[in-house]
Amino acid sequence: MKEELLRELVIRNDHKIIYLILDGLGGHPKPGGDRTELETARTPNFDRLATEGICGLLDPISPGITPGSGPGHLALFGYDPQEYIIGRGVLSALGVEFHLTEKDVAARLNFCTIDGNGVVVDRRAGRIPTEWNQKLCQKIRRQVDLGPEVEVFLETESEHRAVLILRGEDLGGNINDTDPQVVGEKPLAPRGEDPASERTAAFVRQFLDQVRDILKDESPANFILARGFAKYDPLPTLEERYGLKAVAIAQYPMYRGLARLVGMDVPPKPETYDDMWRQLQEHYPDYDFFFIHFKKTDSTGEDGDFEKKVRVIEEIDRWAGRLTELNPAVIVVTGDHSTPSVLKSHSWHPVPALLWSPYTRPDAVTAFGERDCAGGYMGRMETRHLIILALANALRLKKFGA
Amino acid sequence: MKEELLRELVIRNDHKIIYLILDGLGGHPKPGGDRTELETARTPNFDRLATEGICGLLDPISPGITPGSGPGHLALFGYDPQEYIIGRGVLSALGVEFHLTEKDVAARLNFCTIDGNGVVVDRRAGRIPTEWNQKLCQKIRRQVDLGPEVEVFLETESEHRAVLILRGEDLGGNINDTDPQVVGEKPLAPRGEDPASERTAAFVRQFLDQVRDILKDESPANFILARGFAKYDPLPTLEERYGLKAVAIAQYPMYRGLARLVGMDVPPKPETYDDMWRQLQEHYPDYDFFFIHFKKTDSTGEDGDFEKKVRVIEEIDRWAGRLTELNPAVIVVTGDHSTPSVLKSHSWHPVPALLWSPYTRPDAVTAFGERDCAGGYMGRMETRHLIILALANALRLKKFGA
Repeated sequence: MKEELLRELVIRNDHKIIYLILDGLGGHPKPGGDRTELETARTPNFDRLATEGICGLLDPISPGITPGSGPGHLALFGYDPQEYIIGRGVLSALGVEFHLTEKDVAARLNFCTIDGNGVVVDRRAGRIPTEWNQKLCQKIRRQVDLGPEVEVFLETESEHRAVLILRGEDLGGNINDTDPQVVGEKPLAPRGEDPASERTAAFVRQFLDQVRDILKDESPANFILARGFAKYDPLPTLEERYGLKAVAIAQYPMYRGLARLVGMDVPPKPETYDDMWRQLQEHYPDYDFFFIHFKKTDSTGEDGDFEKKVRVIEEIDRWAGRLTELNPAVIVVTGDHSTPSVLKSHSWHPVPALLWSPYTRPDAVTAFGERDCAGGYMGRMETRHLIILALANALRLKKFGA
Repeated sequence: MKEELLRELVIRNDHKIIYLILDGLGGHPKPGGDRTELETARTPNFDRLATEGICGLLDPISPGITPGSGPGHLALFGYDPQEYIIGRGVLSALGVEFHLTEKDVAARLNFCTIDGNGVVVDRRAGRIPTEWNQKLCQKIRRQVDLGPEVEVFLETESEHRAVLILRGEDLGGNINDTDPQVVGEKPLAPRGEDPASERTAAFVRQFLDQVRDILKDESPANFILARGFAKYDPLPTLEERYGLKAVAIAQYPMYRGLARLVGMDVPPKPETYDDMWRQLQEHYPDYDFFFIHFKKTDSTGEDGDFEKKVRVIEEIDRWAGRLTELNPAVIVVTGDHSTPSVLKSHSWHPVPALLWSPYTRPDAVTAFGERDCAGGYMGRMETRHLIILALANALRLKKFGA
């Protein structure tokens, strides 16, 4: 439904919605096999929710499109990922849990190696260890100075990767990558496509000149390459769009950052799944919407470890067994995309989903798996509709039209 | 997915995609019957592909809309048929395999009968035989002359139908029909809605005046009516949109023309199904995408011949038995629309589809038929997404966003 029409339908009440997101949940059988990871896993709790609720298959973007984590989560939160494009620099800043403001332009950095003529000889500076990266960032932070108009933040990501944030008035993010993408060429000079971006690009050029000098005696990381410049434009919050006071319970920085992007509160990082349960209990009275993110289904898929992904799913199923005791109005279990271990990467396969509530008309599905979900009431739909279905089942939407 | 976003995701590789299009494939049971033509046909090869791949039901445009061949095929090629409207004149020119250029405006012509007062008394000139039409076209071509600025092409379609193409600089196609649609009225004068179209309409008026004189002693075909004026605007090609070098193996002019419209190469007309197989083998190494079009499923449906449509489907199934030997990455079997023999026409019923690839997560479907397809992983979707799904399964798309 169109955003402006939807907003007029929103009601506030005290019915709570729990989103259990198993990152990369969707899978694929092993070669010659017949069952996906989820179909293989013993999941009595999900099966019960699937039996009592409705199931379906979700396309995070549209059929055939493999999403990154950013667009995958935006879709889960109901934001059309083809409308709300998050720049790579902003995503990286979210990934190190940097608190962006609307004065910020962010870019991804690589430490690199240049030769005496300024030609790039290694775009990743031999993948220096993260600790080294941290030391170099500290050295740059101490010495760099772009004057009073702009603040510089430099954050280590991992290995050779870091994030640059410039904060100031009237900055712009339409700036080309300086990374030439191949060795044997000099880095490109950053240029802005519009006045605000060119003003920002001038600061970036100044920054790069200083960094070249600061790192000149370092080896192998004696310079940096920048790409994915992006201005941070705050998104409408879940509160503004749906009247939902939302909290994120997530261990990984990227997802904590994505939650902040849509206005969720994000309590301190939970170290264990037990911590996650305690956070949920602690914050349960104070919020309407609970985004609970489990990462390991994705990382085991990316590792190509079918059996381990199965075990992770079973572990989360056990974790989820107590959810109905909290008496929520709606429980959703799904993923932001598929990560079949046979592909060792995100994929385009639609994602199994279940939605449990007292108001779901029970369908024929009695087990939570891809094949079963294909026959459920939710049908196959774009992920962005899911939160609207959740709001409806929480009786948080008025009738449209008279 | 939005076209500009999709283009950034396209990868080129050597994985091949075969599209087997059975025109008008979707059917309907006979009165009192229970099985469609496809469900009745013995199709062991399609059933095997359906078992190993995924199935679904496709809406060429959107639910309830019956498509013509033009929009039906544009959707198969991934072009939103509500965005890319092909004018009737252009479609007719494609239907006679006329090679259009971007300087061309095309219109459909009817030979008609007018009385001494110029009033239309038969809009189809008694449906004159095609050979007569050819003679009249030749006569007009020899005598007509619109000066040096515009070239005139006149091509027989069949019976009373022909196609007019005007070629010149700065022509426009926004011109009204001259066909009054009823007998007892005079033909309408063509007028252009904008300067380029009015300039073109002036040439058309001049053309009609000359034709009236050239045909004045003919009977019953002593004049012509024109409709469906349309400027030819070349479409982005499959190569531009998807990085696919594409070839069409098709017997019928309209589909060969539609293939050319999206930039496919079109080898000489294959006379038999064996010729079609030989063409596929011959061109297999040199292309990425193979559009293979079978017409008889549609024409037997249009004839209302249920049994013959069944036999045609079985014949194509046998033809398709060897496809996997070519080792393609993706095989698609579907139609451009439904043509149930009980309706003797195109219809709005969604079209059964199967997509076979090593990366399709097997669904529960083990036979290729409308009812089975309704339970498959592909779900029900708009046809235009199908090529994106095929590209994904051929590993020809990058991830969207980070």
